[in-house]
Amino acid sequence: MIQRIYNFSAGPAVLPKSVLKRAAKELENYEGTGQSVMEMSHRSKEFKAILSEAKRKLTLLLNIPENYEILFLQGGASLQFAMLPLNLLNETKSADYVITGIWAQKAYEEACRFGHMKMIASSKKQHFTDIPNAEEINPRKEASYVHITFNNTIVGTCYSKIPDTGDIPLIADVSSYLLSEPLDVKKFGAIYAGAQKNMGIAGVTIVIIRKDLIKDTLNDVPTLLQYQTHVKHQSLYHTPPAYNIYISKLVFDWLLEMGGLVEMQKINTKKASLFYSFLQSSKLFTSAVKKEVRSKMNIPFQTGSPALDEKFIKESSECGFLNLKGHRSVGGMRASFYNAMPVQGVEDLIAFMEKFEKKYR
Amino acid sequence: MIQRIYNFSAGPAVLPKSVLKRAAKELENYEGTGQSVMEMSHRSKEFKAILSEAKRKLTLLLNIPENYEILFLQGGASLQFAMLPLNLLNETKSADYVITGIWAQKAYEEACRFGHMKMIASSKKQHFTDIPNAEEINPRKEASYVHITFNNTIVGTCYSKIPDTGDIPLIADVSSYLLSEPLDVKKFGAIYAGAQKNMGIAGVTIVIIRKDLIKDTLNDVPTLLQYQTHVKHQSLYHTPPAYNIYISKLVFDWLLEMGGLVEMQKINTKKASLFYSFLQSSKLFTSAVKKEVRSKMNIPFQTGSPALDEKFIKESSECGFLNLKGHRSVGGMRASFYNAMPVQGVEDLIAFMEKFEKKYR
Repeated sequence: MIQRIYNFSAGPAVLPKSVLKRAAKELENYEGTGQSVMEMSHRSKEFKAILSEAKRKLTLLLNIPENYEILFLQGGASLQFAMLPLNLLNETKSADYVITGIWAQKAYEEACRFGHMKMIASSKKQHFTDIPNAEEINPRKEASYVHITFNNTIVGTCYSKIPDTGDIPLIADVSSYLLSEPLDVKKFGAIYAGAQKNMGIAGVTIVIIRKDLIKDTLNDVPTLLQYQTHVKHQSLYHTPPAYNIYISKLVFDWLLEMGGLVEMQKINTKKASLFYSFLQSSKLFTSAVKKEVRSKMNIPFQTGSPALDEKFIKESSECGFLNLKGHRSVGGMRASFYNAMPVQGVEDLIAFMEKFEKKYR
Repeated sequence: MIQRIYNFSAGPAVLPKSVLKRAAKELENYEGTGQSVMEMSHRSKEFKAILSEAKRKLTLLLNIPENYEILFLQGGASLQFAMLPLNLLNETKSADYVITGIWAQKAYEEACRFGHMKMIASSKKQHFTDIPNAEEINPRKEASYVHITFNNTIVGTCYSKIPDTGDIPLIADVSSYLLSEPLDVKKFGAIYAGAQKNMGIAGVTIVIIRKDLIKDTLNDVPTLLQYQTHVKHQSLYHTPPAYNIYISKLVFDWLLEMGGLVEMQKINTKKASLFYSFLQSSKLFTSAVKKEVRSKMNIPFQTGSPALDEKFIKESSECGFLNLKGHRSVGGMRASFYNAMPVQGVEDLIAFMEKFEKKYR
């Protein structure tokens, strides 16, 4: 019988205990309304208050400038891969992509359906264990935008600096990263993230986009795939994923109670340092990622022996350390340390790994 | 202090009390896994079991033939308005639409972005208080499909018979209708519905589509807007709205416990009969909808005086009868009697309306 479990899933991922507790408590009767949030009309004053609080709190957390719109959409980051070119390509029908992993590659391939995309930099030769240097990222003048994948969930890399793309808008997939530490939003034309990593549950995608980039009606683009539709109707053009937005609001509440993103950064830095230090000292477990670009959120590691990796995944799972299996494309293990993972979880995992190392090395 | 509330919202709408209770109970720890369903990897065996049970139970409820696929998608019925023409238009790039209300009109207008659509029948002249007769619905030979809106949520009409479109596939928006009574799925090429009426919460859309209609890769259509993507990956191409699917599964469980759709039909017929009989006998409240095509799910009614309508909406709300305001495009009142609305709710509403009538007529 497992006493306590820790969920190291890369997403959908662990949520703060207090968020789950509050959701459970409010589920049947939200603030004395006699209704569940699940049952509320999306045009009711109660739900509109939830939506506007979600926006207000996200704005506070990220210090989002007034010239940006916050949209709560559906379809995940994967739908953004299409929405970005459909909405943001200018008359050149061209944009630049930096390839730092499988998701970056997918974003690029999807965009290629709608224009002439160029890979301007890539770390494929390094098996994505690195991120191209700032000086390698030189957008073309005719590029409508430059797309980067800020944190690479599968390989465990993260930009250590925001690239400077001059006048060309920088667009970033910040899934697995957003809200893990402060981010200078004004350096981006747009950022987007599925909520199921650090911001809630699957089914809602958050897009933060500079207002001047939003075009008027695009006749050949599905209405729901046009940013302007959602901007004009404040994410209420049609029924939004209301309960999912409510859970995100609870996560924002929790983050503000925790002291905001500066505090989260301290905690996340501590967790990652503990773990990378352990990997450094370990004679069994290693990380393939270049030190300067290590992700604090997703940390792949391996023993060097696929059989031993498998044993580790099995034994750790039996001891309540769940979802440590690495992505099928890289193998080995991966631990994700999102905001809701307590320091204790990382410490306990390290203790387990130390025992495992003694036993099997 | 309101003792008991009834939620007559057209959607998001009332859910069965037992579904909410079970969701609340399982929220922090699903079946002893130590995780919430909200936190589960969508590739975990636990979530895959939820998804496959949801499909199995929906198949049981609707007796879905084997040559149909069941998809759990995002974007609501509104995104289907674009996905249908993008996926189903043949080389004629043309399809037929029957216009029976605002949503049917929206489906038609969205489709016009992608081909040459024809309105082959309409009840606009009757202010949508009627549905075109079977003999008026004559699809053109070159039509890729015929689209109908089976239940019209705003005006409160519903087809009393499934139109026969011969070899041309019949596609129906069955939001607000699906699971309210048995439906002969094999008469349709595809049916689709947002879950937030009778099948769960906003954020998941159910599409049931005949396999032979699903085309191979469509190069100029966003990957996520191609049915084949979701068919090939069994609704797991990317992270699905996992928690929303789980709630739908709980609703399917509840429906099976209730005895399935034949039983629901009896209850829904009883609720609608009670209410329409009352409207018939009332000297104050009237329905504008033609008797033969009255919806059992959404029943608009009015007093004839906008001021009195407003008073009714205010007083009923104060007494715990929520969301009775009619859609802004038709005014008056509207009561939605989805599966989760108990007979008692309808009886109590009628009693309130009788008192109101005595007081103000």
